[in-house]
Amino acid sequence: MSALVETAVYRSVQGVVEKNEELAQQVLKNEARINQLEIEIDDMAIGLLALQAPLAADLRLITAAIKINNDLERMGDLSVSIAESAMALVREPVIRPSIDIPHIAALAQGMVRKALDAFVSRDSELARSVLASDDAVDNLRTASYHELTSFMENNSSQIPQALRLLTVVRNLERIADHATNIAEDVLFLVKGIDVRHHNEQRAPVASG
Amino acid sequence: MSALVETAVYRSVQGVVEKNEELAQQVLKNEARINQLEIEIDDMAIGLLALQAPLAADLRLITAAIKINNDLERMGDLSVSIAESAMALVREPVIRPSIDIPHIAALAQGMVRKALDAFVSRDSELARSVLASDDAVDNLRTASYHELTSFMENNSSQIPQALRLLTVVRNLERIADHATNIAEDVLFLVKGIDVRHHNEQRAPVASG
Repeated sequence: MSALVETAVYRSVQGVVEKNEELAQQVLKNEARINQLEIEIDDMAIGLLALQAPLAADLRLITAAIKINNDLERMGDLSVSIAESAMALVREPVIRPSIDIPHIAALAQGMVRKALDAFVSRDSELARSVLASDDAVDNLRTASYHELTSFMENNSSQIPQALRLLTVVRNLERIADHATNIAEDVLFLVKGIDVRHHNEQRAPVASG
Repeated sequence: MSALVETAVYRSVQGVVEKNEELAQQVLKNEARINQLEIEIDDMAIGLLALQAPLAADLRLITAAIKINNDLERMGDLSVSIAESAMALVREPVIRPSIDIPHIAALAQGMVRKALDAFVSRDSELARSVLASDDAVDNLRTASYHELTSFMENNSSQIPQALRLLTVVRNLERIADHATNIAEDVLFLVKGIDVRHHNEQRAPVASG
């Protein structure tokens, strides 16, 4: 599931950056597989809860998996949206506002990769590094937003393309947000610390 | 939690429609309470899984509650975003593109209300009616998008305000998406039918 979603994010971004319609098409083609896996993983997790009645660390692992599964599926949806923007941009005259989509994309993809690696290797330091990157993505998004607003004010015939780029930036920001959610789940899983909403507190002891 | 989130959605939209800064401020003020409740409900659900090792219907109820809790918190975030747009719009000259935010908002709010009522009363028909409304919201969003694009092309000095309205419409669409997620969880809970991704299949029997 992680590999499919990482590939979808990568291909959708390359679809935009290289104006490569084929890569974008592949993202659309693989969406059904991601959706199917989401259902299978959910069923498996609920089945484990029912059949094994797991406690403490195992229970935290399974509930984390249910949440991460959901975040991954949403990232898949966002990749589809980016791929659709790519396919529209291929058909329209190229515009060159000074926003750095490859830079934002590289940051967001790095966060996704690190969050998933942190989950697999139970690495809380790596998970914390993901949280630290979220502000950088937000700042780049805000700067791009201002840049694209000025661009539209001065190039009214190119507003449709500028709006598509705005959508791509916003979707990359949302992918980064999902990576942040996963990193928070990893911290809860590894350390039993709830960092959501900057509310650092110990988890209640979940033992039977 | 539901009541707080419904109120937040309502106030944020009224903040935009009535240009009422005070209502928007109240949304920002209540965000912390929603975030705190999300954590408490999650802890309670995981505690129940650990201490009670519930089976079948109870297990489905608790896993549905974990997901719905997450959707509610996201709706709270989206309300905050709408409230922020409202506060910015209050300070800027009024623009009047022909998009019907009250109509889209009423549809989205109706979906939220019905999805939560369906959960409380385990009403699968009501849940299905939410799924039916999702396409209507998507169509209105697309029409608003086209309308705002033309508006910006013809009123380049008012692009910042038009972009804010676009963000409001997009956030309302996302609130409707979360209501749809909740309705899907209700159908799974009541009927054991998984309707995600239009993939109607029976749930595996989760019994210990």
